[in-house]
Amino acid sequence: MLRRVGMLIVQKYGGTSVGSIERMKAVAQRCLATQRQGHDVAVVVSAMSGETNRLLALAAQLHDDTSDREVDVIVATGEQVSVGLVALAIRAAGGKARSFLGDQVKIVTDSAHSRARIVSIDAAPLRAAFAAGEIAVIAGFQGVDDKGNITTLGRGGSDTTGVAIAAALDADVCEIYTDVDGVYTTDPNMVPTARKIDKISYEEMLELASLGAKVLQIRSVEFGMKYGVKIHVRSSFSDAPGTWVVPEEQSMEAVVVSGVTVAKDEAKIVVDDLPDTPGVAWRVFAPLADANIVVDMIVQNQAWDGTTDLTFTVPAIDKKRTLDTLRQAIPDIVGANGERMTADDEICKVSVVGVGMRSHAGVAKRMFQLLAEDNINIQLIATSEIKISVVVAKKYAELAVRVLHEGFGLSKPPGERAGLI
Amino acid sequence: MLRRVGMLIVQKYGGTSVGSIERMKAVAQRCLATQRQGHDVAVVVSAMSGETNRLLALAAQLHDDTSDREVDVIVATGEQVSVGLVALAIRAAGGKARSFLGDQVKIVTDSAHSRARIVSIDAAPLRAAFAAGEIAVIAGFQGVDDKGNITTLGRGGSDTTGVAIAAALDADVCEIYTDVDGVYTTDPNMVPTARKIDKISYEEMLELASLGAKVLQIRSVEFGMKYGVKIHVRSSFSDAPGTWVVPEEQSMEAVVVSGVTVAKDEAKIVVDDLPDTPGVAWRVFAPLADANIVVDMIVQNQAWDGTTDLTFTVPAIDKKRTLDTLRQAIPDIVGANGERMTADDEICKVSVVGVGMRSHAGVAKRMFQLLAEDNINIQLIATSEIKISVVVAKKYAELAVRVLHEGFGLSKPPGERAGLI
Repeated sequence: MLRRVGMLIVQKYGGTSVGSIERMKAVAQRCLATQRQGHDVAVVVSAMSGETNRLLALAAQLHDDTSDREVDVIVATGEQVSVGLVALAIRAAGGKARSFLGDQVKIVTDSAHSRARIVSIDAAPLRAAFAAGEIAVIAGFQGVDDKGNITTLGRGGSDTTGVAIAAALDADVCEIYTDVDGVYTTDPNMVPTARKIDKISYEEMLELASLGAKVLQIRSVEFGMKYGVKIHVRSSFSDAPGTWVVPEEQSMEAVVVSGVTVAKDEAKIVVDDLPDTPGVAWRVFAPLADANIVVDMIVQNQAWDGTTDLTFTVPAIDKKRTLDTLRQAIPDIVGANGERMTADDEICKVSVVGVGMRSHAGVAKRMFQLLAEDNINIQLIATSEIKISVVVAKKYAELAVRVLHEGFGLSKPPGERAGLI
Repeated sequence: MLRRVGMLIVQKYGGTSVGSIERMKAVAQRCLATQRQGHDVAVVVSAMSGETNRLLALAAQLHDDTSDREVDVIVATGEQVSVGLVALAIRAAGGKARSFLGDQVKIVTDSAHSRARIVSIDAAPLRAAFAAGEIAVIAGFQGVDDKGNITTLGRGGSDTTGVAIAAALDADVCEIYTDVDGVYTTDPNMVPTARKIDKISYEEMLELASLGAKVLQIRSVEFGMKYGVKIHVRSSFSDAPGTWVVPEEQSMEAVVVSGVTVAKDEAKIVVDDLPDTPGVAWRVFAPLADANIVVDMIVQNQAWDGTTDLTFTVPAIDKKRTLDTLRQAIPDIVGANGERMTADDEICKVSVVGVGMRSHAGVAKRMFQLLAEDNINIQLIATSEIKISVVVAKKYAELAVRVLHEGFGLSKPPGERAGLI
């Protein structure tokens, strides 16, 4: 994907990339190099690394609710300092630049402090800056509600700012600069043969959340999908291309499996001997929802002898709270002492993801075969259109990932994976 | 000056007063105590002590012009953090509070970054906060120009914000909280018998700049004088009354001398043998103005034998630059090698200030007598309506101040100073 002359490029730099004056000078050089190629450049920057935590710690000495109007006023200063400094760095390097805060680009959000959602953006001030030959340096993470209160978008919100600015400007690409060089087929620390993914669909990226969350806020991907913004995740330490997150293309289906993920922070809850009557599932999950416990996988087996059983997973830290909640809410179902429930947090969830699954019938079969060959017992199975997840004992986590990564040929370039399924 | 119930009080707290979370809690308690007396309270706060310097140092690594749009964006965050934290501190203490930034109260200024002047303030958002029972916590030092750019008011600008907010609200008083307990008759470190001044006029306060500048930005006094805002300078460490800066009252004239100041950072320049012709003074001072050298006292003696001489003072750090500038600009007057100029920075300027001078003829005579009794030679004299300044050798600085402070009875309460002149 070579750049045409005269494109409009949004570049987003994270906290590490602007973590020092020296790093900011490097950012300035990259922005100017892009502008010199004939492009208009908007830069979205995060707070210097560590700054948001420092500000939150100050506020925490006075207040323990971080979703507060005043906490947003305080933490928003992190990005404000960054935009001023990056604008100065660009000017120090001979360029023209102007900083923009959330209320100066009119990044209007709802009023949900600390987790606000973007409603609209006024691109006019940015276009005026481009017309004046300036690089627009925009504060990430922050917005302003319709009453003029400062809001913030939540952790990693600068990614969403970047993609939203790109959408508002109808930019050719939103480049997300980070300290890794892209999204990998699996965690490279676990599987040394993991490969950088060159191109991936929004849907796959969302399913690969546990891989991608480290480099890209998931909400920014949803935003990109909604507005068709091409996202390029790449390293601020090199010029090498990273991973493009783009609308699904015909050719992507040839790549049956794009990545393998593992989540080790879930617990499995089994409820046995449930009456096989309408409304039972509702009676189980309603109290959990009321207690704000997020349920992930849910599997109910075929009824047998008038009873059935129900298995689901919750965050491991909520295991005890889940058992307590159900024992108090539905003792008639789980037993007065919860004796019809069992819980296990020595599990992990391993998933394979790929848009090609839609047209390839054999992925599940191949996955189960690969695991069986290494005697890894499957405790639970759940599928979506482009993902298959299995729960296995936690001790098999790394083995299962490696076996699937090799078995689906992810160590090889996409073109050389044919015939594996 | 007891408070009526239902007053509107502006309280301004400096960097030391909000220098830590603990200090902010003390500020919150004072605000709430004031509100509980039945008053509406607006609080103006500075950046936490050291913060503005930290931010300027960051910017200085990229840029050496502090009067820059982006530097204002950066340093304005100091007050933004303070208002959020103080609002949280008030809420943590059980009160209601809301923070306001420069653009949220619409503190509109001109566009002179780093030294902007306030043009207008929209008091409506503050009145809405009062109506809701909230304490309004306002960021000092910052404003916004008519295009929405962040501006700052210069060092000590939070004092000006406080007085301007008080003017906009027609407040009953603007309390300036600081780490000293008021304005003194002279520097208490130099003269242990110096007394706190209970009440002083704006005009005297302006003339006492070198005393007052430590506790009160001079521009805030000009602002107070223009809009008739009563200013109460007091300590944030005690409940004792401080110094009231108010419109001149009849009774003030009874206090002939209010204070004694000394400035040790000036240099005296003498130009001898000038032709006594029109335009000579202009030819001397025009090049100095062009070089941005601030001239303080100017004295020209009676011509004699067709020539005269001119003496003036400049900041001591500008001594060499003054001599160089004049030698290059007007060699015909000062000599090709500047041989008709002499410069001396072993001097100091001692002044006595008081509105009572207008109606008391003997102040100058008494001042010169007091200095003569201690053999202090006067090199230069300049007077304004309410001030007499003399230049003496720097070695006499402390002695001159003590002699004048005692001689004009400033160690005694105002009512006991009669008969001294």
